[in-house]
Amino acid sequence: MKALIPVSPLDSLKTRLSEFLNKEERKFLLFNMLKDIFKALEGLEVYVISKDNEILDFVKGLGGRVIEEKYKGLNNAIKQGFNEIRGNEVLIIPADIPLIKKRHINEIMILSKNYDAIISPSRGGGTNLLYLKDKRSIEVRYEGFSFLKHIDEFKKHGLKYYIYDSFYLSIDVNTVEDLGEIFIHGEGTETKRYLMDLNIKVLPKHSSAGRFEIVRG
Amino acid sequence: MKALIPVSPLDSLKTRLSEFLNKEERKFLLFNMLKDIFKALEGLEVYVISKDNEILDFVKGLGGRVIEEKYKGLNNAIKQGFNEIRGNEVLIIPADIPLIKKRHINEIMILSKNYDAIISPSRGGGTNLLYLKDKRSIEVRYEGFSFLKHIDEFKKHGLKYYIYDSFYLSIDVNTVEDLGEIFIHGEGTETKRYLMDLNIKVLPKHSSAGRFEIVRG
Repeated sequence: MKALIPVSPLDSLKTRLSEFLNKEERKFLLFNMLKDIFKALEGLEVYVISKDNEILDFVKGLGGRVIEEKYKGLNNAIKQGFNEIRGNEVLIIPADIPLIKKRHINEIMILSKNYDAIISPSRGGGTNLLYLKDKRSIEVRYEGFSFLKHIDEFKKHGLKYYIYDSFYLSIDVNTVEDLGEIFIHGEGTETKRYLMDLNIKVLPKHSSAGRFEIVRG
Repeated sequence: MKALIPVSPLDSLKTRLSEFLNKEERKFLLFNMLKDIFKALEGLEVYVISKDNEILDFVKGLGGRVIEEKYKGLNNAIKQGFNEIRGNEVLIIPADIPLIKKRHINEIMILSKNYDAIISPSRGGGTNLLYLKDKRSIEVRYEGFSFLKHIDEFKKHGLKYYIYDSFYLSIDVNTVEDLGEIFIHGEGTETKRYLMDLNIKVLPKHSSAGRFEIVRG
């Protein structure tokens, strides 16, 4: 099984966090998330596909293999990745789920013996982890409600699939609010350590605006 | 093992949904969520504690046992519930997690043989499922970052605990945004059926404001 992590260029990275973290800080946030993800994937061959050379250089330092992304859009990046990775069995992992742990990957490895496809939901209808026994068995359809689209693909192609139900895998870091979850559940992660170094604090909040109050100071 | 579901009075119910659902609709939303939860808990003795007679009457129709809440606040309601339930082994479940399934409860039952306490996170630092082998073993500390407070309690009292990592159990329905998750993941639930009867639709969205666009029309 090979892991594939597609990463957007730093310019367009996590712009929803831009009111809270400057561009340099968003870059280091990404680097720290990648460290946590590589730790969970230890022992697997990990490929990162990106247009951004700074990201690819960083990944080499983590022991990852790199693919220079040639086309436009996430689905095309993944298809290119599939073409450049040898072997059929792939695990696609986003770059922004730092709460992933080795125990998740171990469970996926065990389940992969009995299933053709494994999927984990993200909040908002997305897909946060996708395992395919054969990378050519479906059309990858990220963006929009990709969780439902991928389930449709599994059914259309008669794959035996498993929904891997995990809160920690559902937490992708896109908004300031999401940083709160890292504070609550990210003990021992590089990502939490980095946010604490920035002097970010998280308080509980119960209003229509959100579940956390995130402050810096 | 007995289940305990604390429910706030209808007046104060889900006020964060009030711009989208009127009071009568919020009541039926609750009733439908309770139906889904009772289905997951089938076979267990289920107690509902509330100050609201309309809720208690509805629960009797579902085959639940009812406790009239006497004190103020969620933690006091649970303590009162503990006093009125016979036996030591309890499972506390919120009234707003309609994506809970029988398979979750079956897994909790198996895990309960090996652990003194089991906890599932909600988004925002809360606790969505709490199993205690002995209801007197900790002080329940809901509200605020109750997930961390409960972990502290487990450690303080030397309990062997398990974090039950589930996306579906993490989804509590408090905001309009949360309704989106029910649309994506609630196939077959009474809660989704009810929302669809109200002609609510959910579209993908990617902005700082949220992950879903929820419309009625």
